[in-house]
Amino acid sequence: MSDADVLSRQKSSRGRVFEDFSLGEVIEHASPRTIGDGEVSIYHALTGNRFTLQVSDPFARDVGYHAAPVDDFLVFNMVFGQSVPDISSNAIANLGYAEVDFLSQLYVGETVRARSEVIGLKENSSGETGVVYVRTEGLDARGTPVLRFVRWVMVPTRAGAAAKGASGAAGESIPPLAAQVAPLTIPRHRLNKFWSDRDTGSPHRWEDYEAGEKIDHLSGVTVEEAEHMMATRLYLNNSHTHFDGHAMKSTPFGRRVVYGGHVISIARALTHNGLANACIVSAIHGGRHANPTFAGDTLYAWTEVLEKQELDRRQDIGALRLRTTATKNLPCAGFPRLPETKGAKKTPESEAIVLELDYTVILPRR
Amino acid sequence: MSDADVLSRQKSSRGRVFEDFSLGEVIEHASPRTIGDGEVSIYHALTGNRFTLQVSDPFARDVGYHAAPVDDFLVFNMVFGQSVPDISSNAIANLGYAEVDFLSQLYVGETVRARSEVIGLKENSSGETGVVYVRTEGLDARGTPVLRFVRWVMVPTRAGAAAKGASGAAGESIPPLAAQVAPLTIPRHRLNKFWSDRDTGSPHRWEDYEAGEKIDHLSGVTVEEAEHMMATRLYLNNSHTHFDGHAMKSTPFGRRVVYGGHVISIARALTHNGLANACIVSAIHGGRHANPTFAGDTLYAWTEVLEKQELDRRQDIGALRLRTTATKNLPCAGFPRLPETKGAKKTPESEAIVLELDYTVILPRR
Amino acid sequence: MSDADVLSRQKSSRGRVFEDFSLGEVIEHASPRTIGDGEVSIYHALTGNRFTLQVSDPFARDVGYHAAPVDDFLVFNMVFGQSVPDISSNAIANLGYAEVDFLSQLYVGETVRARSEVIGLKENSSGETGVVYVRTEGLDARGTPVLRFVRWVMVPTRAGAAAKGASGAAGESIPPLAAQVAPLTIPRHRLNKFWSDRDTGSPHRWEDYEAGEKIDHLSGVTVEEAEHMMATRLYLNNSHTHFDGHAMKSTPFGRRVVYGGHVISIARALTHNGLANACIVSAIHGGRHANPTFAGDTLYAWTEVLEKQELDRRQDIGALRLRTTATKNLPCAGFPRLPETKGAKKTPESEAIVLELDYTVILPRR
Repeated sequence: MSDADVLSRQKSSRGRVFEDFSLGEVIEHASPRTIGDGEVSIYHALTGNRFTLQVSDPFARDVGYHAAPVDDFLVFNMVFGQSVPDISSNAIANLGYAEVDFLSQLYVGETVRARSEVIGLKENSSGETGVVYVRTEGLDARGTPVLRFVRWVMVPTRAGAAAKGASGAAGESIPPLAAQVAPLTIPRHRLNKFWSDRDTGSPHRWEDYEAGEKIDHLSGVTVEEAEHMMATRLYLNNSHTHFDGHAMKSTPFGRRVVYGGHVISIARALTHNGLANACIVSAIHGGRHANPTFAGDTLYAWTEVLEKQELDRRQDIGALRLRTTATKNLPCAGFPRLPETKGAKKTPESEAIVLELDYTVILPRR
Repeated sequence: MSDADVLSRQKSSRGRVFEDFSLGEVIEHASPRTIGDGEVSIYHALTGNRFTLQVSDPFARDVGYHAAPVDDFLVFNMVFGQSVPDISSNAIANLGYAEVDFLSQLYVGETVRARSEVIGLKENSSGETGVVYVRTEGLDARGTPVLRFVRWVMVPTRAGAAAKGASGAAGESIPPLAAQVAPLTIPRHRLNKFWSDRDTGSPHRWEDYEAGEKIDHLSGVTVEEAEHMMATRLYLNNSHTHFDGHAMKSTPFGRRVVYGGHVISIARALTHNGLANACIVSAIHGGRHANPTFAGDTLYAWTEVLEKQELDRRQDIGALRLRTTATKNLPCAGFPRLPETKGAKKTPESEAIVLELDYTVILPRR
Repeated sequence: MSDADVLSRQKSSRGRVFEDFSLGEVIEHASPRTIGDGEVSIYHALTGNRFTLQVSDPFARDVGYHAAPVDDFLVFNMVFGQSVPDISSNAIANLGYAEVDFLSQLYVGETVRARSEVIGLKENSSGETGVVYVRTEGLDARGTPVLRFVRWVMVPTRAGAAAKGASGAAGESIPPLAAQVAPLTIPRHRLNKFWSDRDTGSPHRWEDYEAGEKIDHLSGVTVEEAEHMMATRLYLNNSHTHFDGHAMKSTPFGRRVVYGGHVISIARALTHNGLANACIVSAIHGGRHANPTFAGDTLYAWTEVLEKQELDRRQDIGALRLRTTATKNLPCAGFPRLPETKGAKKTPESEAIVLELDYTVILPRR
């Protein structure tokens, strides 16, 4: 190996393997991004998001905001994306996320950056892989946290199976994770005084929903390679699984995989038909990408209302805990669900489910 | 059917059928949209629009505008799109539009909303479908109309053929429609003092065109699924025919159809080569989407000057009434036209025509 | 031929052939374009550019700019694109460019226009084609040059082979072209005081690079039709080779070709991994599009440091002359190169190379 080769390896990053993480380490991610009007418009053009609070300045001002706030999931995906080069470049699997707490709204012109703390490490029994848990924060330019979440990924070890146990990680450290975000972060704005159901397109306020209610969002949207790649670049996520069609040919998938966060954004946009007043996302309690989504797949979604929550000292708004299920190439009239037991037999239905998202939205009350 | 199912049907909308419309009803459409810099840029990147007035702020200011105005067809498509969930979600056919009157220019940062009045209803003889006529207005945030048009669509009845005549619609009511917009809405700005042919790329002013003149716009542009879906989301049009590739497989088309308004926008952009000084659209008198456009089709266009109009007390500008014909996969050197008679035999030429648009543009005079 | 046909030919432009150029002629190109926030965002979403100076306003302000400057290659491609309708609509080949000098930074809201001077003309021996050399300038709204470059293209003659030598061009006039831009244009801003390696994502400053060093940028990105067409429209380049899939079927390529300038932009974005502090481009000394890129190709890149240059009276920054090689469907771990001799046998490696770009970047010093 020549000197130049060695230098090369030092300059361009292949991302981290299991041994490169240490418990308690704080990683400041690169690429702070100013969210301009263009970023927001591209997001809407790629996801079909039409929640009125995010697309109409006059509506947003009428209900107490400076201007239309940036969509919560765009912020989520950008913060997630900024963390990818350091955390999950080499991820074999994005195992899950939890405790996603939307702390405040961002506006056009603000800049978001991200940092992560390693809060858990667990080498797998094979010695070939390990699980890394991080708590990631999105911060505005003044350093105020706007978003916080935990995610965990499976990454390879450098040592490999041959050196089982030799990864240097100090044993097992799995962080306790809350089954739900509590207490919820509640918007400080008083919302409903000028809230216009005419503008949102739905007469259904918080009072109109009930636990157990199921909503088929009806519409389907086919995803194209160009779309998910543009979105994923917008999110600053540069994982090769989404972009490198040549390399992906020699994987079991045989092709590029749509970034799961973009699937969430599309599912969220689909929920507009049935939940048009649910303009604010407060928290994601958990999420599961049950199957991969590929270009050419058509996504559908349905939602079950899991819980209806009054909010302390707030007569203007209420919360709904929802589980939105997104499918590929299967309309949701039958309300398909993943089997509850892990080892359950695969069915065409369970194979069609690409996402289950457990989250809480805020709606105006009457 | 469970209670939850019933609730579900109440929350997400399947759109209206014939019986849901009543004559004289005014429908305020949801989703007012702030047109930011991003929306405008995406429009240009997707259509190839290069009319100088819409893309250069200094040029626009020199000729008397505050800034580059938003493209007329972007406004048209957004207003149209906002009306889709209420008017044409279930449309079997978009039969036509008329009396499209561009009342004033919009600028970046303004918000457009839409409302429609039902001005005609006609149940078809089969009882299975009916035609709905609406007059739709686009309004800015202060409620000033910026655009007005009539369109009519064929929608199914709820009653169906079995209940012929029972749709409840009070007989036949077909509104009178003008064969052309008159008088024309004329821009108040005095245009030509600093109008720069160097900047627009054409020395041809109003005086240089003659009735009967034919212009082949030469260029062809292939349309991709990702492009037309991004554009159609930008326009807020959420009709499943444009997005749901899975459902469209079981239709005679077998695939997604490109939204006709996007075809108009592309045709308009193609006319730049030959009509580069025609930066302002005053009216659309009528339009016909003769055949569907699909992803992979290459669009071409040619224009015939139908009429040359002087404008009262305006020596700075003149009007041209044009008919632009757009084709798919057929260059327009032979100036292809639709047969004038309705039942005429189909020819490869007539099958290639996707659009005939009869409209009036404003050009500077010398 | 009817009068209308004749008129038609006068209104829409087929672009220039060899005889239409005359030495010393200055062509003012049409379509001045205001670069808004949207244009910049679309550029980043299409190229994956993540150089921090161009995407973060706070970072840019900290190091002395008003705001994040517009990416140098976006400006280059827009100026190039504006010149296409006049210079290279009919180009059989874009033979090369040289002396690309980035004179100053543009900011969002500024308007760029272009003009070209014909500096060389050479009819080829067949009489069927000729080479046109132009020096093109990009200017801001005040007329200040922001960018200057030379390019040369092969275009057909009107006379054709039958009239060899009769093209009317006054013999051979090949302009002298510098092998490199010298002296370099150096940013006036003092850069490194608040330069944050944390934000750029790389600890590697100017001092850390050495002549002869090779950097594999590792990532691959597949290009889609929708993406390159959106980008090419953004750049205002309307050459039919990039858009007209129908016409391109009957060419040897059989399909649309990705615009070479977009390949440069993608290659530049790929270099971020290994050169993240190289946020400023000073000059392009030469470039070679060795093979065409088509939709579906996956692009990779590697860079050799050709020269390390100190800059007069500047302790804050230094220059690196680089040669970036981009390939299609071939990762760059083996550092593939084009054969030095022109007639060398084609190899799978040389066939995979789509770009060699010789250019100079500015990096902060410690």
